[in-house]
Amino acid sequence: MSEVHMARRSRLRERPTVSGAGGGTALLVSTPANLRYLTGCAPPGAVLLLDPDGHDTLLTRSDPVPPPGLADGSDALRVRSAAPPAQDPVTTAGEIAARGRAGTLAVEEHHLTVARHRALAAAAPRLRLSDLGPAVEQQRLVKDEEEIAALRIAAEITDQALGELLESILVGRTERHLALELERRLIDHGADGPAFPTCVATGRHSGLADHVPTDRRVEEGDFLTVRLGASYRGYRCRIGRTFVIGTAPADWQIQLYDLVFAAQRAAREALAPGVPFREVDRAARQLLDSAGYAEALGPAVGGGIGLEIGEDPVLSPQGVGKLDACVPVTVEPGVHLPGRGGVRIDDTLVVRSQSDGGPELLTITTKELLAL
Amino acid sequence: MSEVHMARRSRLRERPTVSGAGGGTALLVSTPANLRYLTGCAPPGAVLLLDPDGHDTLLTRSDPVPPPGLADGSDALRVRSAAPPAQDPVTTAGEIAARGRAGTLAVEEHHLTVARHRALAAAAPRLRLSDLGPAVEQQRLVKDEEEIAALRIAAEITDQALGELLESILVGRTERHLALELERRLIDHGADGPAFPTCVATGRHSGLADHVPTDRRVEEGDFLTVRLGASYRGYRCRIGRTFVIGTAPADWQIQLYDLVFAAQRAAREALAPGVPFREVDRAARQLLDSAGYAEALGPAVGGGIGLEIGEDPVLSPQGVGKLDACVPVTVEPGVHLPGRGGVRIDDTLVVRSQSDGGPELLTITTKELLAL
Repeated sequence: MSEVHMARRSRLRERPTVSGAGGGTALLVSTPANLRYLTGCAPPGAVLLLDPDGHDTLLTRSDPVPPPGLADGSDALRVRSAAPPAQDPVTTAGEIAARGRAGTLAVEEHHLTVARHRALAAAAPRLRLSDLGPAVEQQRLVKDEEEIAALRIAAEITDQALGELLESILVGRTERHLALELERRLIDHGADGPAFPTCVATGRHSGLADHVPTDRRVEEGDFLTVRLGASYRGYRCRIGRTFVIGTAPADWQIQLYDLVFAAQRAAREALAPGVPFREVDRAARQLLDSAGYAEALGPAVGGGIGLEIGEDPVLSPQGVGKLDACVPVTVEPGVHLPGRGGVRIDDTLVVRSQSDGGPELLTITTKELLAL
Repeated sequence: MSEVHMARRSRLRERPTVSGAGGGTALLVSTPANLRYLTGCAPPGAVLLLDPDGHDTLLTRSDPVPPPGLADGSDALRVRSAAPPAQDPVTTAGEIAARGRAGTLAVEEHHLTVARHRALAAAAPRLRLSDLGPAVEQQRLVKDEEEIAALRIAAEITDQALGELLESILVGRTERHLALELERRLIDHGADGPAFPTCVATGRHSGLADHVPTDRRVEEGDFLTVRLGASYRGYRCRIGRTFVIGTAPADWQIQLYDLVFAAQRAAREALAPGVPFREVDRAARQLLDSAGYAEALGPAVGGGIGLEIGEDPVLSPQGVGKLDACVPVTVEPGVHLPGRGGVRIDDTLVVRSQSDGGPELLTITTKELLAL
């Protein structure tokens, strides 16, 4: 994998916002997901220094043992630990940059704390500090085939874990217990871990976006909303499904389900290269609005997904920009009726052109309203 | 619990470093563990504003639903969501503070990013921004009985989970599988979750501090090092034990175990109010040094534990300060011999005076060298 990461570092250097900063600018990357994208690993507190003469150095907190995931024996990336014990890798990076040809060091101001930034300025007083901004995040937006392959496996694992749960007896079990079992199944099938805390919501909790599982037990007649995702090699996906418990759903359940399903499908079908982010949101939102659930959707119908849950782009009415091919996104509308419950349906998809077959659905568990 | 949190907020206002800043200083707390300590909850991105006229406001990202764990109906703490969608609670807090009597806003520079700090300054240009520093962390150092009670339960859960593992068959199972099983047992016994990623290290991995579990299987003759901890109501503990697999340990295993055990005991016995942090470290370090393992111990023999793993104090040769009563700490020495394996023994204890019976051991699983 080290060639992949080396190529990503080269592409970062060549980005117009980065190369336009001038020849004497070194880059300091500290955001963990960005570090992982550029090196394959993200030890706690570590930073990556890309200096103007092409040397890349990963600075770790203390341990001199190369972190797992890092290519051994490659001289494309040096690994050093921060000198004397407990010194911050950020300040060590500043000292190294100041000794080299760099006049300016561009840092991730959206991640670096005020205190670390101040210590960096003190450690390298001759360096001018500038803002790298979200340059690495922007580069991460369009995924390469290696990344999409990891997402596909994450989605497969997630579908497997959910599928097994659906075959088991659910009535009488608690939300908490079901969430735990799903997470165990994710790991059994090869996930690094859950991509985010698994959400199991029954009865009047159903349809809530970020419900924390309780000791409430599944009952006949309940809606049951499940949201989960595997993380595989750092790549995360999300699926959300809502089921009814018992033999036949009530009329209000069928109506609400059909509405959310229609909104979710409309947003999925809107996904194509060149489509404005807000159009995807609007496709779902106008359906929910016209059915009288204007407030139900929350700030966005979905968003980017990859090394993080909730990356760019944000598919919201305020979203500025247009979709590109090979951008994985979630589409996750829901309606919750206070005191009664509700429906959420979430998928992870990759934006593809019509000639490539249209949006690629990664999370393939059925979206029929199953009665379990 | 709301009275407890209100009292903590009052004590924060009365701290000399805080009250000495003058009457017109509002405080902005953003570090999640500090937020949880002062309010009982820490929604992602939320901040707490304590203004000079005694009003406390928790600002959350968007959702107007009161976060779980927060007292309902109490007017001691107002809850507001950041105005317009996606606005940062930090800037909303700055706007509120600027409208009040505050001339200065003290922020946590060790947590706030450069970008958020800049946005705050822009949102409230008339406010002077100063550094609150680690005032809340310092207040968190000595735990109250409610906190120690939560730690005791966390330790009980941890001992139970470990005890059950020891009764099962271990040979042939992978590190990864054992780590998963331990985490499941923690949650089965009532933990919120693991306090940190569970570490299971066999054979040549044994004795490593932060080994990531692999697919290596437990074999006869192995050392097996297990490090785990429950989080209970946010309070975390840590236990570490090393066992041998099979009927009888080899001589080198007995010798190494006895040495680490002696070092660990020496550090535990050094724990008392008034003892310098570095003395606790020295007690263990000198024993390991004189046996020829000067480099084995790493930067510190242990440290504070509570809402976070690795809080203050740091029990290291560089540690400046002395222990207080009611400070929970870990004592966690280890020796790892590259290619062969090693031993770690970790406990969580609360510092108590001799008249109170000396250090209170929370993690009570035996430290005999068990052959499993």
